[in-house]
Amino acid sequence: MQAWRERTERALDARLPPATDAPTRLHEAIRYSVLGGGKRIRPALVFATALTLGLTEADVEAVACAIEVVHVYSLVHDDLPSMDDDDLRRGRPTCHKAFDEATALLVGDALQPLAFQWLARDPGLRATPAVRLRLIELLAVASGTYGMAGGQAIDLQAQGRRLELAQVDDMHARKTGALISASVLMPAECAARPDDASHRVLRRFAAAIGLAFQIQDDLLDVLGDVGTLGKATGADQERGKPTYPALIGVAASQARMTRLHEEALDELSHFGENAAPLRQLAGWLLSRSF
Amino acid sequence: MQAWRERTERALDARLPPATDAPTRLHEAIRYSVLGGGKRIRPALVFATALTLGLTEADVEAVACAIEVVHVYSLVHDDLPSMDDDDLRRGRPTCHKAFDEATALLVGDALQPLAFQWLARDPGLRATPAVRLRLIELLAVASGTYGMAGGQAIDLQAQGRRLELAQVDDMHARKTGALISASVLMPAECAARPDDASHRVLRRFAAAIGLAFQIQDDLLDVLGDVGTLGKATGADQERGKPTYPALIGVAASQARMTRLHEEALDELSHFGENAAPLRQLAGWLLSRSF
Repeated sequence: MQAWRERTERALDARLPPATDAPTRLHEAIRYSVLGGGKRIRPALVFATALTLGLTEADVEAVACAIEVVHVYSLVHDDLPSMDDDDLRRGRPTCHKAFDEATALLVGDALQPLAFQWLARDPGLRATPAVRLRLIELLAVASGTYGMAGGQAIDLQAQGRRLELAQVDDMHARKTGALISASVLMPAECAARPDDASHRVLRRFAAAIGLAFQIQDDLLDVLGDVGTLGKATGADQERGKPTYPALIGVAASQARMTRLHEEALDELSHFGENAAPLRQLAGWLLSRSF
Repeated sequence: MQAWRERTERALDARLPPATDAPTRLHEAIRYSVLGGGKRIRPALVFATALTLGLTEADVEAVACAIEVVHVYSLVHDDLPSMDDDDLRRGRPTCHKAFDEATALLVGDALQPLAFQWLARDPGLRATPAVRLRLIELLAVASGTYGMAGGQAIDLQAQGRRLELAQVDDMHARKTGALISASVLMPAECAARPDDASHRVLRRFAAAIGLAFQIQDDLLDVLGDVGTLGKATGADQERGKPTYPALIGVAASQARMTRLHEEALDELSHFGENAAPLRQLAGWLLSRSF
């Protein structure tokens, strides 16, 4: 994980426009938002999937960077006053606090085309033109109204309202699940024509791991505070966001997370020993405490 | 122009997600923002360039739609309180007034991937995979920090400050010029390998027409009000935005606009009679009064 984080950091640093280029303030704000932090979970999934399918990390570095900047743009916009109104992100002031709201808006807006530009022409990316187009389509759909942006909209409409479990699952499948799935399916697209069975396996693996990750996020929002701050309600619950612990309780949430983790690992048996990187990453992801 | 506007409207209507799909409110807000208005100048440039180069409108309809939704996303975000804080657009409440700020943010965010998705896979688009990638790159660069988003950032930094003429030219070349140039260069990319000379001609034509259009916009902001409201200062000047009339005066602005228009028409002589659609469009654009 540490090596993948460092590789991601270097790869992003090399691809982002230099802060010395005009408009300097916007480029500074972009680099501030993208670099120097983040768990880089999506790039790790990209790399682990690539290794599982016989590719190298270098083959898919551009994919990892493209997905990560889409993730970062969503965080920058999500932190804005009209959305979650957050002042801190990764222990530092959020982009609109460190710069200003208009700049944060433009940071998010400008990160999106960078992602598609990299997929279209990054020279290191191992993909034919037809595969590049498929990558662009996968990322576009994952980040659009049937994916991430749509999940955000469902989240907005849901606040303060009681959702059914299936609705919360659907919201998360779009809001975070779509980009996590893309982090597995995009490198798979780069591998030499994966057979349908492998594709189905990876799709189910990504769905299970994405949802497990979200449940864990909700649990940490509750339990993290119990341990460290001595209070049982976290930021999500204060905002009236639907969380799994609030919906089905802490114990049932933990049980579901464990079951999803096991399902995800079961899927990987399709790849035998080759899936060691993905297996290890899944274990690491679901044992995190931050 | 009227026929092109109707074609653009139909093409966008057919390509946008239906408002009945979840999340319905976001899809409604997207359709509200994109459909039912707008001069559709960029699609007209796409169609006129296509006809000049021997393509049909159908060949490049997806290009026209992709550029137009990028333009619309920029308007929706530009109207937000943290940017221009506009309540009206095309005679109707702006997106964040008709819906809410968070939804308007997501509308802009979700329109971007749609544009790239259409370029990647629209079945009617006449382009090989390699050409599609080149279209995606052109649109990404035109809308990123070296294009539209960068121009917005320069505009932000400039407000209330005195800029030199060359700086204002640079700002507009990015803020509106980049997407207007893309509206000419993207259909050219679809035509069978235009020679370098044609490419240079189209690039200069687009730069001249884009700047002329911007000067005219500034003039209308001043002169439109003189005629209709009886006051000499428009919204741009009130905001302390650098405008050409404020910078070099009304008469010099008009003279420069006319000169740029003539330069643009001169460039088109390269294409002889074939350039009639572009010639007509240029004339129409620069005689508009709205």
